[in-house]
Amino acid sequence: MKEYSQSKINRIKRGQNRATYDVDTINTILDAGFIGFVSYTYEGTAISIPMAYGRKDNKIYLHSSQGNRMLLSLLEVGKMSMTVMHLDALVLARSGLHHSVNYRSVTLFGSVKKIEENQEKSGALECFMNHMIEGRWDEIRPMHQQELDRTLVVEMTIETASAKIRDVGVNDEPEDESLPIWAGLVPLKQVAEYPISDTKLPENIAIPNHVLHYYETHQ
Amino acid sequence: MKEYSQSKINRIKRGQNRATYDVDTINTILDAGFIGFVSYTYEGTAISIPMAYGRKDNKIYLHSSQGNRMLLSLLEVGKMSMTVMHLDALVLARSGLHHSVNYRSVTLFGSVKKIEENQEKSGALECFMNHMIEGRWDEIRPMHQQELDRTLVVEMTIETASAKIRDVGVNDEPEDESLPIWAGLVPLKQVAEYPISDTKLPENIAIPNHVLHYYETHQ
Repeated sequence: MKEYSQSKINRIKRGQNRATYDVDTINTILDAGFIGFVSYTYEGTAISIPMAYGRKDNKIYLHSSQGNRMLLSLLEVGKMSMTVMHLDALVLARSGLHHSVNYRSVTLFGSVKKIEENQEKSGALECFMNHMIEGRWDEIRPMHQQELDRTLVVEMTIETASAKIRDVGVNDEPEDESLPIWAGLVPLKQVAEYPISDTKLPENIAIPNHVLHYYETHQ
Repeated sequence: MKEYSQSKINRIKRGQNRATYDVDTINTILDAGFIGFVSYTYEGTAISIPMAYGRKDNKIYLHSSQGNRMLLSLLEVGKMSMTVMHLDALVLARSGLHHSVNYRSVTLFGSVKKIEENQEKSGALECFMNHMIEGRWDEIRPMHQQELDRTLVVEMTIETASAKIRDVGVNDEPEDESLPIWAGLVPLKQVAEYPISDTKLPENIAIPNHVLHYYETHQ
């Protein structure tokens, strides 16, 4: 089992029984979604902005237009953190204190650099897009050079990380268990609805398999 | 229409057509969820951590154990920002550049203070819990004083904010529309599954109406 090293920045102090530093577990959580909350500091205030990401090995790819305030600021600083969370259930206890949620979350810390070389940039965007929906990249119109030039692509190298997972039932005080109060879980999940074709499509363009597959595997 | 004032910190520069500062719109986005990404700075690195929140008027309530590193740090600084996002669809275009997602996101900026007085603290926790699931607070075992003492309750006063919403279809280059490439939306939503009762419940404790209502209204 390969683990990220622990230091002050990523060590989980509260709820250590829910913490893990296992690389495979962290990658599985990262691959279960594609929206991360990237943090940066703007004039002394920490701000986080949701961004789509792709992952390959220990690299995270982000992109934006060339003028993006946050990514330019992170490139200047040379490092960033990003947090991803999936919400899995409401945990409704008999007491207020034991209310919780089931979830899987990851916080990553690492260095960032700008990708400038065309082929590397294109490869990063392919990773990014296929992370959102597997198989998409090969079906779309190839990028024009001008589009590639307008796009800022940032690569984060994950240096350390931690995950927290809560995936158990209600955990009330034993003396509360006989109370006439309902307790339990309400499972939550993100699902896809049936794809909606663009109204401007030429006739006879069917919904492709990679899109139907996404829909079917997100139920 | 009441709006938050705009300044450098909350003004949206990229995608201004998707931006709004309207207070009601921002509150509606906040009330559609209960997980926010709270940002803070730890030894020079901006980090965001997902936390459950409640909202009442222009106040956001957070809580944790008394030793929570992030909330204690924010109380020391006296201000914070929090971001909330709901993902609504994949937007699959004919070109890579026009791929996007439909979403509703809000970033809040404001001052924070600790709530110490018992009744005010309890009121904040009631707001917090009913924001997660309406009607829950009145059905649970009242808090013990010791539990209240162990809980750190933080009130954020929203001073300014901005929202970004994308809720339209595919927006390809006109010259790409005749290409034999499928484009369209894959709607996404978070749904509840049927509640799962705790195995330790006394007999004859039925799933209460407020829980069934939550389930029925999250489909």
